Amino acid sequence: MSDTVKYLLDESRLPKTWYNINADLPKPMAPVLHPGTQQPVTPDDLAPLFPRAVIEQEMSTEREIEIPEPVREVYRQWRPSPLYRARRLEKALGTPARIYYKYEGVSPTGSHKPNTAIPQAFYNKQEGVKRITTETGAGQWGSSLALAGALFGLEIVVYMVRVSFQQKPYRRAFMETFGAQCIPSPSDTTEAGRAILGKNPDSTGSLGIAISEAVEMAAQRDDTKYALGSVLNHVLLHQTVIGLEAMEQLAMADDYPDMVIGCTGGGSNFAGIVFPFLGEQLRGGRKVDVIAVEPSACPTLTKGRFAYDFGDTAHLTPLTKMHTLGSAFVPPGFHAGGLRYHGMAPQVSHLADLGYIDPRAYNQIECFQAGIQFAKAEGIIPAPEANHAVKGAIDEALKCKESGEAKTILFNLCGHGNFDMQAYTDFLAGKLEELEYDEGEAAMALAGLPSVNA
Amino acid sequence: MSDTVKYLLDESRLPKTWYNINADLPKPMAPVLHPGTQQPVTPDDLAPLFPRAVIEQEMSTEREIEIPEPVREVYRQWRPSPLYRARRLEKALGTPARIYYKYEGVSPTGSHKPNTAIPQAFYNKQEGVKRITTETGAGQWGSSLALAGALFGLEIVVYMVRVSFQQKPYRRAFMETFGAQCIPSPSDTTEAGRAILGKNPDSTGSLGIAISEAVEMAAQRDDTKYALGSVLNHVLLHQTVIGLEAMEQLAMADDYPDMVIGCTGGGSNFAGIVFPFLGEQLRGGRKVDVIAVEPSACPTLTKGRFAYDFGDTAHLTPLTKMHTLGSAFVPPGFHAGGLRYHGMAPQVSHLADLGYIDPRAYNQIECFQAGIQFAKAEGIIPAPEANHAVKGAIDEALKCKESGEAKTILFNLCGHGNFDMQAYTDFLAGKLEELEYDEGEAAMALAGLPSVNA
Repeated sequence: MSDTVKYLLDESRLPKTWYNINADLPKPMAPVLHPGTQQPVTPDDLAPLFPRAVIEQEMSTEREIEIPEPVREVYRQWRPSPLYRARRLEKALGTPARIYYKYEGVSPTGSHKPNTAIPQAFYNKQEGVKRITTETGAGQWGSSLALAGALFGLEIVVYMVRVSFQQKPYRRAFMETFGAQCIPSPSDTTEAGRAILGKNPDSTGSLGIAISEAVEMAAQRDDTKYALGSVLNHVLLHQTVIGLEAMEQLAMADDYPDMVIGCTGGGSNFAGIVFPFLGEQLRGGRKVDVIAVEPSACPTLTKGRFAYDFGDTAHLTPLTKMHTLGSAFVPPGFHAGGLRYHGMAPQVSHLADLGYIDPRAYNQIECFQAGIQFAKAEGIIPAPEANHAVKGAIDEALKCKESGEAKTILFNLCGHGNFDMQAYTDFLAGKLEELEYDEGEAAMALAGLPSVNA
Repeated sequence: MSDTVKYLLDESRLPKTWYNINADLPKPMAPVLHPGTQQPVTPDDLAPLFPRAVIEQEMSTEREIEIPEPVREVYRQWRPSPLYRARRLEKALGTPARIYYKYEGVSPTGSHKPNTAIPQAFYNKQEGVKRITTETGAGQWGSSLALAGALFGLEIVVYMVRVSFQQKPYRRAFMETFGAQCIPSPSDTTEAGRAILGKNPDSTGSLGIAISEAVEMAAQRDDTKYALGSVLNHVLLHQTVIGLEAMEQLAMADDYPDMVIGCTGGGSNFAGIVFPFLGEQLRGGRKVDVIAVEPSACPTLTKGRFAYDFGDTAHLTPLTKMHTLGSAFVPPGFHAGGLRYHGMAPQVSHLADLGYIDPRAYNQIECFQAGIQFAKAEGIIPAPEANHAVKGAIDEALKCKESGEAKTILFNLCGHGNFDMQAYTDFLAGKLEELEYDEGEAAMALAGLPSVNA
């Protein structure tokens, strides 16, 4: 058999619908609560922030939701994305396992994020919105929304955590090349930003502050809405195009996964590859082992509590029941910036709570080691986030080597590492620390969970 | 018609042979001369540096040269690369022209360079070579050879121009992630390097010095050969896979180019897309306008002399007849590092001299403007080198707008700009200069051409 095995779906087989796992949940999710009343939120509560179509998707229990044709048109630029059999990695490991990876790094921004940026921009444009605000940390999400804004003719305003804005000028340039405005947060463009700067003019910012600024700006203006790049149901929904394609591609290989593996930060790339397979199981179909790999420096699923919490540190968002380390928890500065979130998508949390997801935590050094082994064998340098999924897959493949089982392993390689070479530089120079989370700090953050949990 | 029009060839239609334009030249090329004897070089002269199979290709006049199956196997990871119709750009320009671009940024290193790195590594491995040395400036070629070395199990030693080594640590990390050794040049690992450092311990290096070091290291060791990433016949040959695929993809669109456009530095990506179409014309088939776009800061084809010259500044290489600004010419430091070469591929020069190629020169600012217009319309940020081809294509499309002609324009988008965001940052901040070449300096460099031209 050839060493390069690539499964490419014909464009005509690009999915026509996303898959909504809410249709197949064995037990309904806890409702999202209004932060003031602690009552379930209504569509009207969300209307200042999101277009109607997005709110409908957020609350829908329809199994299949149509992908609008203009969205499929943009998807077709890089989708269906390739599924690879990692033959050279299998040989290097000496494993009888069959390892497949879905590669989302082929998108114009190098990750899975445009899968949801494109439809979010489309629905906003359709409803006459002129401008979308958002926040970004490492910059991957902001870049993807900037791309979507350029393609659909929308103004994009990205509040970028000030320390990242300073450390990652290339991400800023990437967004600006697409015509987006990129503002270091905290800024003097919002009340929230001015309040922080008033107290601390040198504030380096945080994702929580940047969310507050983006939300405030959107809520104030009729022609402006807000967009989020992970966590919410509609975001996970849009990402299911990944798993739906992978399922078809594995059928081309006459194969089906024994296990599906993804890295988890907010949960969107993980849900994207996992939910279609998990849905199959929930509907009585074939069972899969689902493995969520998270950083041990931000171990939301393995060490967090399943409880109602805020999505942001400033407590402006609705309350969602999810695995959380506490909204006041600040993870240490490890290199997989996309996984540095105190919470987890409510859908992922719910399914983990029900026992459908097996979470694992690894430190960043072992993940970079796995990533470099993967790069040497497969020729692609993964993003630091994706290295967590690689590590999970390699560990499972090595278990197969021990047991002699020829299991089928599928994982999501959610992005390439082109914008993360500083992390590789540090790793190669021996400068990376293992970085574990601070249990005491997490305990304090968890002690501050909202009263609705009492 | 849809806005995203992508032509993907089935893997089974990946070319089985490269196209060698030497078979169809209307007039034979001037021979390559030995730098000492000034007599035509023999295969034995080149044997210390290149494997036998590569030397045969360098001198071959066979029209079709088989692509070895292990090379096709690696090619299949990202090849056939997509051909896009730039519908959104056409609309933005309001042109009746049909603009197609072949996208080579889908390779693991983000450019066309692996098309030749892979076969060069393969032939070396096949002939028992243990180690390949090379030089790199901006790092795109070194990264691609590093990738090839990892896949074929060869040691790769890259001499990287010291100033680039310091300015582009990410490229170094990229190479090291694949296991390559990256040495800042001048270094103390070679006579040539030590001689330079003896005179000037703070030397920032040059491509000429790095070539000397790589060649010296290869010539000294039986288990070590040297590889070059552009200019030579065999390199251009390997790149023809680009144009061969594009020809098949245009046939899927029931179209054929009126003009083919590429940017030119050493000439390899340009030849890759152009030669299959030009060969068709040379064999009596359909005529195409061939446009070579070069930087006005290094205007080899538009301002250089067609004469015998050295490939390096240290005068260690054979003499080839080519368009040159003089081997002593040092181009100003504009951002398209891949186009900063004093000479031009002898095959490209020969065909330009015969009138088959129409060269154009643009400055970097107008090229970045074109690149950003392209990015906003098509969603891909091009490499600064590729911006030259984009600029050429946009100018031709605007001419069509004026004349009302619906011409078919094909250009090569040879790489993405992920590793070049500093250049975009500078452009967006208004810090880029137009940078023209210094005519006086070029005149002096040309005055130093070797005596064989007399």
